[in-house]
Amino acid sequence: MTLPYGIFSTDGSAPRVGVRIDDQILDLGAVGRLGFFDDLTFDQTVFDQPVLNPFMELGKPVHRAIRQRLLELLAHPEKPLDAFADQVRVPAATATLHLPIRIGDYTDFYASQEHASNVGRMFRPQTEPLLPNWKHLPVAYHGRASSIVVSGTPVKRPSGQFLDPDQQPVFGPTQALDFELELGIVIGKPSALGEPVPVDEAESHVFGFVLFNDWSARDIQRWEYQPLGPFLGKNFASSISPWVVPLEALAPFRTDGPTQEPTPLPYLRSTARSHFDIELEVVLQPANQEEIIISRTNARHLYWSVAQLIAHHTVNGCNLNVGDVLATGTISGPTDDSCGSLLEQSWNGSRPLVLPDGSTRSFLHYGDTVILRGWAGNRQIDFGEVRGTVIS
Amino acid sequence: MTLPYGIFSTDGSAPRVGVRIDDQILDLGAVGRLGFFDDLTFDQTVFDQPVLNPFMELGKPVHRAIRQRLLELLAHPEKPLDAFADQVRVPAATATLHLPIRIGDYTDFYASQEHASNVGRMFRPQTEPLLPNWKHLPVAYHGRASSIVVSGTPVKRPSGQFLDPDQQPVFGPTQALDFELELGIVIGKPSALGEPVPVDEAESHVFGFVLFNDWSARDIQRWEYQPLGPFLGKNFASSISPWVVPLEALAPFRTDGPTQEPTPLPYLRSTARSHFDIELEVVLQPANQEEIIISRTNARHLYWSVAQLIAHHTVNGCNLNVGDVLATGTISGPTDDSCGSLLEQSWNGSRPLVLPDGSTRSFLHYGDTVILRGWAGNRQIDFGEVRGTVIS
Repeated sequence: MTLPYGIFSTDGSAPRVGVRIDDQILDLGAVGRLGFFDDLTFDQTVFDQPVLNPFMELGKPVHRAIRQRLLELLAHPEKPLDAFADQVRVPAATATLHLPIRIGDYTDFYASQEHASNVGRMFRPQTEPLLPNWKHLPVAYHGRASSIVVSGTPVKRPSGQFLDPDQQPVFGPTQALDFELELGIVIGKPSALGEPVPVDEAESHVFGFVLFNDWSARDIQRWEYQPLGPFLGKNFASSISPWVVPLEALAPFRTDGPTQEPTPLPYLRSTARSHFDIELEVVLQPANQEEIIISRTNARHLYWSVAQLIAHHTVNGCNLNVGDVLATGTISGPTDDSCGSLLEQSWNGSRPLVLPDGSTRSFLHYGDTVILRGWAGNRQIDFGEVRGTVIS
Repeated sequence: MTLPYGIFSTDGSAPRVGVRIDDQILDLGAVGRLGFFDDLTFDQTVFDQPVLNPFMELGKPVHRAIRQRLLELLAHPEKPLDAFADQVRVPAATATLHLPIRIGDYTDFYASQEHASNVGRMFRPQTEPLLPNWKHLPVAYHGRASSIVVSGTPVKRPSGQFLDPDQQPVFGPTQALDFELELGIVIGKPSALGEPVPVDEAESHVFGFVLFNDWSARDIQRWEYQPLGPFLGKNFASSISPWVVPLEALAPFRTDGPTQEPTPLPYLRSTARSHFDIELEVVLQPANQEEIIISRTNARHLYWSVAQLIAHHTVNGCNLNVGDVLATGTISGPTDDSCGSLLEQSWNGSRPLVLPDGSTRSFLHYGDTVILRGWAGNRQIDFGEVRGTVIS
């Protein structure tokens, strides 16, 4: 079972911690008040907080014990929670879901070789697709935490500067609004300033994962990004799924990543299997139309592992805080129908997607809804979705 | 008078809000408990908080009223605070100063034409020093908030990847540790996601300014930064001064900035004088040696104004939160002895600084202390200093 954690409220009640189980939400504070956690010694008021941070700060032993207790309660033949269903269960359809994390710093990596190569082929056609540093270190930049929103929040098409066809800077709404399919890694254990996290301890800092849509305005990004990287082309909005899938739930879906050649420097070397076999899909739903699956890929295509991202991020002593989010960067697969961005799918507009109604998409239109979904195995583990609609 | 705000504690007492007056700190909570703020209707418990954020959230009318009251009390011929000196005044020498802000997002700009041109001349000698976008928009990137520390915190020399003389990536302590002289703009009023802040309203979001040292590892930065910008070359530490100088204190020191040619797009145009005449200096103090002033410059050299930085940052709808910090980027002046970084002063090591003891500096050595100082006028307004010592 996934048993993902989120923050929900009902009918104006205070936002609090819940666990999603199919079409219901288990109210963990209510479960605790019935005594089901009494032998696990932790401060149960964390469940009455409007973000997961205090809960995450309890640490992995407590998280594991709570998850184990929930699995026992749900598997128990006498269904001990059923007698209290009206107190502890909330129909998900009646709940409001909130941004589950008070996000500290947000970092965006660039960990998919296919994505980085596609971008290189498009924008630097005369050169090697990958820049010289790419296979030596997980390239990354800092993103904006303030504009990370929960699934369902409409995304206003941003305005900004970009070059017109005559290569003159003009101001207006972006003409190249895109999505990026990513996973977000939620940090649950801090690291100290000045203290690198060894690669084989890196996963102890991971609370869980969310789906992450790193909305991008390609024209704004292209004009602004030299020499210091993306800024206004990215920071108008990023969307995350409301349910955080705990790392522990993914244990059966560990897998080997791609062979890394050249062998990375020692601080990035690990023999652990810290890639994950997570199926991912991108769905486009134009206004008043059906959903169209426009891309299918898998997190195992990522070149750099989650552990490597964390080891690299901290190797210079940069500290992590509980609530930080590290995103993987766009996850693209090896085929045309496994691209994690419209930029790649439409090859920068040169081969627009043709939709069932005959309309085309080089980039997103007003009214388009983008939905990212993820799962592992036969959907035993379900990430749910992150969705957002483009508005003016 | 400057009357800057900071967070201090004494003898293990709780960190709280103070105002620096010469060699003393005025304990604002204590002043309030004596009734001196009773006619100003605000929640005085903000003074007992360990960060300035709740105080900043009170808004400019309250900040102005408090500042005015303090100026009156200090100027009053009967010196009404003197009778309570043992309750309200703390010798600064006995206090511990804390990071004054719970920083949300941190953005670093690149707003000095001299700095950007120097970097261009060093690293792209065959081309125009400024990239094509530079005079059209204030180039910026997101930095790391978690590793911002208060003045006095030692700075551990970071390790990381960089290229050896044979252009092979190697791992080790940076060989090119540098400082960057900047001003930090502290945001005191939020803006809503999706709502640009017009340039002529931008300063209403500024609580005040700090001195900002954006420590940089040039070799790490050079290898990692393509194509997404600086990351580990910057995020191991940034240091800020403990006293936040309120915007209002700088009113007499407003000045015109450089002529902006080409005229920026309308959203960046303003007729207000929102540059500031702030003298700045960089002091190097090698271990067991005297202080050496190695650079003198002025914030009026910045090309882009504070208001323009904020208008640009939000023009795409990116939201600001109270406690965000926007740094100007390295402030260099037009002469060799007004550079805001050692990179520029030593011209990337090609003309090392020669110190009085005969030693040279291309970049910083272990034991070096860097001190940034700032003031306006005849030091009526004093920013104090931000200092840090390089340790292993």
